[in-house]
Amino acid sequence: MTMQRHFEQELESLKTTLIKMGSIAEEALQASLRALLEGDRKLAEHIIASDDRINTLEIEIDNAIVDLLALQQPVAIDLRLILAAQKINNDLERIGDHAVNIAESALQMRDLRCTMLLPDISAMGAIAQTMFREALDGFIHNDPKLGNTVLVADDKIDAMNRAVIQEIVGRMKSDQKTIDCGLEMIRVSRNLERVADLATNIAEEVIFIAQARVVKHHADDQNPEET
Amino acid sequence: MTMQRHFEQELESLKTTLIKMGSIAEEALQASLRALLEGDRKLAEHIIASDDRINTLEIEIDNAIVDLLALQQPVAIDLRLILAAQKINNDLERIGDHAVNIAESALQMRDLRCTMLLPDISAMGAIAQTMFREALDGFIHNDPKLGNTVLVADDKIDAMNRAVIQEIVGRMKSDQKTIDCGLEMIRVSRNLERVADLATNIAEEVIFIAQARVVKHHADDQNPEET
Repeated sequence: MTMQRHFEQELESLKTTLIKMGSIAEEALQASLRALLEGDRKLAEHIIASDDRINTLEIEIDNAIVDLLALQQPVAIDLRLILAAQKINNDLERIGDHAVNIAESALQMRDLRCTMLLPDISAMGAIAQTMFREALDGFIHNDPKLGNTVLVADDKIDAMNRAVIQEIVGRMKSDQKTIDCGLEMIRVSRNLERVADLATNIAEEVIFIAQARVVKHHADDQNPEET
Repeated sequence: MTMQRHFEQELESLKTTLIKMGSIAEEALQASLRALLEGDRKLAEHIIASDDRINTLEIEIDNAIVDLLALQQPVAIDLRLILAAQKINNDLERIGDHAVNIAESALQMRDLRCTMLLPDISAMGAIAQTMFREALDGFIHNDPKLGNTVLVADDKIDAMNRAVIQEIVGRMKSDQKTIDCGLEMIRVSRNLERVADLATNIAEEVIFIAQARVVKHHADDQNPEET
């Protein structure tokens, strides 16, 4: 009984740490876009320097997952939550990396004195942030319905990424002085598109956690001797 | 006892399926580089069409992992193998995606009749393939020593990627007719660099599996009541 309560506490603590990491990654992404749009060097450098915090949390969460699974045999939704946590942990760490990449591009574009900043980059940034927020909310409230809007938005951001790249390449061809800035812009666009993919992954994991019952039924059918 | 044997069989089967998936991803990567260097349209199209096979295997392996953890409470090296398997599974699926990206660039470069193909791209491809092979060998033979060479090679490929991009950007600036081909080349270079990163991840997972004893000792110290 004590062990069961201990397990539940540890599981709750895992979820809380993951949500904390999500908030940090969210802040990093938001800050990286602000650094890009405002050419804020200090902010960009701060994001790059702060990535260690996310990486440390990733290791902490991975270790907590090993401990949790070694502590007790979780089943159904608990097991799925833990397995999804390992994946979401990795997704969040990668979103942190993308924020760093955008911050690096912000520094580059500041040094290059780039003036070309397509409105679509801001729009893509806003959509990627909303997708990420909704995926995290879905995880926090264990509500897979929130994930559905994320899946729809992913197609939109893919199309915007292609349009942005086409537009930038056109400018690069007509004015070779825009090549350096254009390459950084393409990098930012691709990083935002990747953030949207990772938000989609998280939304899919939230659906996976909630579907525990369906999958359990399926497992029952397959391996009746194990239940 | 029967359940124990069943568990061991399932674990062995998980490892075998993961190795099979590794071979398919390895073949896809190798083929994508051949399609690129030889401008082989049919081969490139075949790689793109075959990616479904890797995606199907990924889902199969993820389901096997849930079943395995629900079946029995694995500890120490078994638990670490299963958790590492979930990560390696994702790494392999992503390597498959990078092979598809390279195949797509191969098609684009064929259509554009690109002649610029830096020798470093071949060299990078060879290094990325070797790293991936060694990481897989480390997993197959459960030998983390093989992973150490992978970690060293990753720095080398990062430097090559930077040099290749610098070289291509220089060409794009001096001749804007090379912009389209240059962008595809940069894409290939970045994808190879990412494959090397993923091979590094796999090598790190192999080290994680082997270190089960050390981590278990650590867990014993932390939570003596749970052992």
